[in-house]
Amino acid sequence: MAAPEIEHLIALLAKLPGLGPRSARRAALYLLKRRESVMTPLARLLEDTAAAVATCSVCGTLDSTDPCAICADPRRDRTQICVVEDVADLWALDRAGTYKGLFHVLGGVLSALEGVGPEDLNIARLVARAGAGGVREVILALSATVDGQTTAHYIGERLAGKDIAVTRLAHGVPVGGELDYLDDGTLSAALKARRPV
Amino acid sequence: MAAPEIEHLIALLAKLPGLGPRSARRAALYLLKRRESVMTPLARLLEDTAAAVATCSVCGTLDSTDPCAICADPRRDRTQICVVEDVADLWALDRAGTYKGLFHVLGGVLSALEGVGPEDLNIARLVARAGAGGVREVILALSATVDGQTTAHYIGERLAGKDIAVTRLAHGVPVGGELDYLDDGTLSAALKARRPV
Repeated sequence: MAAPEIEHLIALLAKLPGLGPRSARRAALYLLKRRESVMTPLARLLEDTAAAVATCSVCGTLDSTDPCAICADPRRDRTQICVVEDVADLWALDRAGTYKGLFHVLGGVLSALEGVGPEDLNIARLVARAGAGGVREVILALSATVDGQTTAHYIGERLAGKDIAVTRLAHGVPVGGELDYLDDGTLSAALKARRPV
Repeated sequence: MAAPEIEHLIALLAKLPGLGPRSARRAALYLLKRRESVMTPLARLLEDTAAAVATCSVCGTLDSTDPCAICADPRRDRTQICVVEDVADLWALDRAGTYKGLFHVLGGVLSALEGVGPEDLNIARLVARAGAGGVREVILALSATVDGQTTAHYIGERLAGKDIAVTRLAHGVPVGGELDYLDDGTLSAALKARRPV
């Protein structure tokens, strides 16, 4: 057995997604061998970031300013709101670099099985934002799962009659994907939504 | 782009073995969502452990006491020293629970290719420990690679003429392993070292 502090550190690291008990042990050893150069700076950074970061009161993302950098950015197109399930999805869409509008993070999707209702999600604020004027389109970038689609449908209903276009992401063949490996549902959707070349 | 602190945190986490850029992003988000319950305690623990842990001046392992808990344990068999390449190997052998002697961490193996010579490893201190009297066996628990075996051979030579038994781990079929998946070298070694049932 290693020292109790080390065992405790391994146990905490093992809780991170992507690290199991064995890789947590390797990560802990990596840190312990670089106490000055990596471990202490990481500790400081974790502490500082935990103190600095907060949930954006407008869109619900995590950032070191409130409102977040995206909500505060005057160059962003304020007529579009892209609704995502989680901060990770916002980051992914933002990295893609095509979308220049605003975002709204729901914090999950409706799920009868897990007991997640509309009041558990950041939906009321989305409806308020959409109703405040100036918004012309709400893009529902939610997972193509049953729960994701249920949530999209629910939000669509809540926004009905507001003179706002409610759209969703296109289904189709992933760029770089091989047809052979695609499921039937995606192939059918891609075929149905075919476009002139 | 997320806030600079968050991007910096992701970059630091991505350096941990077992975490790539994508899983570091997931891990960072996991932490950011649990700022009070996980992120701050992890920061404190990293800071405290980095301050508490040091290299054992006797055997070279990492522990919060010097000499380490194993070197200081009076119940350990002081006639045996098990030589390992790295702290991770010491932990693995200690977890296995069979071995009750002392350890010695080399901090690597000899490698002509990577320019690692005997003076770069914790070998001089091993020879001193072995020569200090009371030690009857040195077990070389080194990797079964060319570099590991070269190192074992070198240490064997350095300890020759000291009336100390120098042994190595057995080669053979891993417990629970299927013959079909084993390489020829292991199978030959296991066959050569066969034992009466």
